[in-house]
Amino acid sequence: MNYPNGLKKTHQASITTHKNRGMTLENELNLSNDFYREIDKAYIYKKPTPIQITKVDYPSRDKAVIKEGFFTTPSTTDYNGLYKGYYIDFEAKETKSTTAFALTNIHPHQIKHLKDIDRHKGIAFLIVRFTTLNETYLLTANKFIYFIEKEERKSIPIEFFRNEAFLIKDSYQPRIDYLKIVDELIGGIK
Amino acid sequence: MNYPNGLKKTHQASITTHKNRGMTLENELNLSNDFYREIDKAYIYKKPTPIQITKVDYPSRDKAVIKEGFFTTPSTTDYNGLYKGYYIDFEAKETKSTTAFALTNIHPHQIKHLKDIDRHKGIAFLIVRFTTLNETYLLTANKFIYFIEKEERKSIPIEFFRNEAFLIKDSYQPRIDYLKIVDELIGGIK
Repeated sequence: MNYPNGLKKTHQASITTHKNRGMTLENELNLSNDFYREIDKAYIYKKPTPIQITKVDYPSRDKAVIKEGFFTTPSTTDYNGLYKGYYIDFEAKETKSTTAFALTNIHPHQIKHLKDIDRHKGIAFLIVRFTTLNETYLLTANKFIYFIEKEERKSIPIEFFRNEAFLIKDSYQPRIDYLKIVDELIGGIK
Repeated sequence: MNYPNGLKKTHQASITTHKNRGMTLENELNLSNDFYREIDKAYIYKKPTPIQITKVDYPSRDKAVIKEGFFTTPSTTDYNGLYKGYYIDFEAKETKSTTAFALTNIHPHQIKHLKDIDRHKGIAFLIVRFTTLNETYLLTANKFIYFIEKEERKSIPIEFFRNEAFLIKDSYQPRIDYLKIVDELIGGIK
C-alpha cells in the first residue's frame, strides 16, 4: 500500500511477489520525466500532493514547521507539462486486478478535468498499469470518456484496454516511454 | 508577510496602508483562473505548495495526519495550464518596492524552467505587481531572460517593466485579465 509522497507505513511488512517486483508506476514515471528533461525532450512534472495545512509553528523568523495537515482530494490530474508545443496532461494508476480497472480510481473532478483538457486541444490520457499482468496502457481521455458515457459498468475491462488503448512496452531509458505513443497521437489526430 | 497557502503568523499585527489594500495577487489570480474555468475559456491552476513530509500518523486505516513537514523550494513555476491549445506557464510575485524587482524573488530553478518552456514553444511569463504603485505587469520569459543575460544588475528597474512589459489593467471580472495579453502574444509571436 503506497501513500502520497512515497511514504509507507513503518510497520508494513515487506511483501515481494514474483510478478510484481520492482518500482511503482509513479517512481518509473518520475524517472522517465527526469530523463525526458535531461535530454531536453519534454518538460512534464508530477504536481505536488495537495495538502490542507491546519497548524504551523514558527520556531524562528525564517522557519516554518507544519505541525498538522491532511491529504486532500486533487481537483486535477497528477502530471502535466509541455512537449513539442503541446500541452500534456495525464493521471497514472496501478491496479492489482487481472480483469478490470475500477472507475473509482479516478475522482469525478479528474474526469471533468480530462474532458476539459481534451476539448481545449490538450493531449490528455490515463496511464494504467495492471501490475499482476505486468501490462501498462496509455488510454486517451477521448476513449476513456467514450467508455464512461456509453457503458453502465463501474469498471473498464482489460479487453477494452487491449483493444482500445496503447500498450507501453518496457524499456530501459526511459523506463516508460509514453511520449513515443504521444508522437503517434500527434501524428494521427493533429 | 505572506506564507504559502495563505497562512499568516497569528501574532502578526494587521497593517493596512492606503495604497496597498485589498487582495493579494495570488488570491486575485486564483479568482481569475476560477472565472476562466467557469466560462470555459482556459484551464490554468496554481500548483499545490511543495512540502516535504517527515512525519505522518495513521490514527485509523483510512486516515493519515501529517505531523511534521517543511515547505520546500519549488522546481517549477506556480501556475500552469491550457489556453486555446497553448501551454501556459507563469510565476507571480508582489513587491513593495517602488523602484525595482529583486531577482532573488525568482529561484534559479524557476529561471531555468522558464527558459525550457520558452524554448519548447510554451507561453511563459512573470506577473509582477508593484503593490505600492498599484501597477501589475506581464513580463514575457523571453524579455526576462534577455534582461538577466544582458545586465549585471541584481534587480529589474521599474522602467524596464514600463518599457518592455505589458501593463495589466484592473478589471472586475476577471480581476486580472492576463489572457487578454496572452491573446496579443499568440497573435504576434505565433
